[in-house]
Amino acid sequence: MRLGYFKGPDGVFPGVVRGKAVHPLPDGFYGTPAARSYALDSLKVLAPCRPSKIICVGLNYHDHVAELGSLPPEDPVLFIKPSTTVIAAGEAIVYPGMASRVDYEAEMAVVVGRTARKVDAGAAADYILGYTAANDITARDLQKKDGQWTRAKSFDTFCPLGPYIVTGLDPRDRRISLYVNGERRQHSSTKHLIFDVYTLFSFISQIMTLNPEDVILTGTPGGVGPLKLGDTVTVEIQGIGRLKNYIVAEVDKSIPSAKFC
Amino acid sequence: MRLGYFKGPDGVFPGVVRGKAVHPLPDGFYGTPAARSYALDSLKVLAPCRPSKIICVGLNYHDHVAELGSLPPEDPVLFIKPSTTVIAAGEAIVYPGMASRVDYEAEMAVVVGRTARKVDAGAAADYILGYTAANDITARDLQKKDGQWTRAKSFDTFCPLGPYIVTGLDPRDRRISLYVNGERRQHSSTKHLIFDVYTLFSFISQIMTLNPEDVILTGTPGGVGPLKLGDTVTVEIQGIGRLKNYIVAEVDKSIPSAKFC
Repeated sequence: MRLGYFKGPDGVFPGVVRGKAVHPLPDGFYGTPAARSYALDSLKVLAPCRPSKIICVGLNYHDHVAELGSLPPEDPVLFIKPSTTVIAAGEAIVYPGMASRVDYEAEMAVVVGRTARKVDAGAAADYILGYTAANDITARDLQKKDGQWTRAKSFDTFCPLGPYIVTGLDPRDRRISLYVNGERRQHSSTKHLIFDVYTLFSFISQIMTLNPEDVILTGTPGGVGPLKLGDTVTVEIQGIGRLKNYIVAEVDKSIPSAKFC
Repeated sequence: MRLGYFKGPDGVFPGVVRGKAVHPLPDGFYGTPAARSYALDSLKVLAPCRPSKIICVGLNYHDHVAELGSLPPEDPVLFIKPSTTVIAAGEAIVYPGMASRVDYEAEMAVVVGRTARKVDAGAAADYILGYTAANDITARDLQKKDGQWTRAKSFDTFCPLGPYIVTGLDPRDRRISLYVNGERRQHSSTKHLIFDVYTLFSFISQIMTLNPEDVILTGTPGGVGPLKLGDTVTVEIQGIGRLKNYIVAEVDKSIPSAKFC
C-alpha cells in the first residue's frame, strides 16, 4: 500500500493511494479505507507522516564514512532533525543565508507504526508502518564549524519526505540513488548499511520511546555533494518511488520563482 | 503568573496557580481563567508544557566551558532533546543500563508562546510565554564516546521540567543553583550566560520555526557532576522555584522503590 496525507476540498486527511484514486483513512493508517475516493490529481500531496521526532543516523555506509575522512562507528551515531524541517515531494528547499555550502544526502526513511520501547531487532518489523524516501539536507560548512551537527541539519525545509509511505516492503536490499538536475550523484543499496534497519530500530528504541509516525533516517551512501540555487534534486528508492524537490533562495535574497518551475 | 498542566478528576488541563488553587485555562495559556478552581493539593502537577522540540545550547557559561576543557564557541552550539525526555517535578529519572556516568545540569528553560521565525533579539520577549527550570540530564560517558551529543541527552526521563512556567520575569540576572541530596553543587546567575536569552531566541529562530510550548534550554554553569541511584537532585532558580527529581534504576536492574520515597 501507498499511504500519506493529502489536502483536498474538505481539508487534510490521511489516505491510501489506489491507482489514480485516494481513499481516506478516517481511523488512521491502520484503519479501513473509506469507499469514497478523490482523484489523486485533484489533491495536494503533503508529507506522508507527521513525526514528533526524526532520529537520524550518521556514518552508516562505509563509502560515506570514507569520503568524510571518518572511521566506522562502534555504535550508531545519532542526531535529531526537528519536525519543522519536513516538506513534501515537489516543495522547495530554502537555501539559508547563514550557510555557504548545502549538500544533498539520499536516505531511506523508516516510519514508526506503533509505540515502541526496548524492541528487539527480531521484532522491529512489527512496529514499522513502512518506508519512504528522505533527503537529509545539510549545511556542510556549518556542520564542520559547529562540531555538533544539529544546526547544519535543522533549517526549515531541510527534510524532504515522500512521496508516500510504502508498506509490505523488505528494506534490506533496496537500490537508492540521487540525481541533481537529472545527473546521478549517489547510487548504492541498503544492503550496504553498516547497521541495518532492524538493528537501528532496536538500538534507538533502547534509548527513547518511538511514537507512531516518528521517522528514522538510516544514513546516506557515498557521493554527497553541494546544491545550488535552481537545482532540482531527486531521491529514488527501489519499490518506494521518487522524491523530487528544488532549491530556492531565502526571500531576502529572492530570485524570480519562474526560474524554478 | 504560574502556568502549567494538571491532572485532576476530570482529566488533564492547562491552568494557572493562584495561591493554593488552580484555575483551568480552557482557551490555553493566553486565555481567560475559569472562575471554578481545584485545590492544588488534589491535582497531579504534570510537566508545564508540551514541546514539539527542545532546543538546547551547549557551552554557554564560561566556567562550564573551562571544566569540559573546551573553548567558548563563536556561535551558540545547538543540540536537540526529543519530547519523550520530558518528565515533571517529583518524577523519577531512570538511569539507563547503557550508561556508566549520568550527570545533572541545571538550566533555565525558555517556553515559547507564539510561533516565531526570524525574530530579532529586541522583539524576542514578545514571543516568550515564560520561564521554567530544567535539568539537562546527560550520560557523560556516551557523550564522550559518540562525539555527537544526541544519544547521551535523549534517554526517556532525561529532561525534568517545572514545576511551573513563570510569566513576567526578567531572565537576565536569575540565580541558578543545583543540589544533590541537599548539598549545593552548582551556583551561578543567568547574567553569566555567554549568549543571553534574547540572543539565543533570535539565533535559533533564524534556523527553525519555533512553535508554541517549544522549549529552549539555555546552558548549564560550572560544577556538573555525576548522580547515583537513590539521589535526589534539585534545580532552584530565583523567581521560578524548585524542580526536584530522584534517580532510579531501569526495571531490569530494579532496586526496592521504597528507597527513593
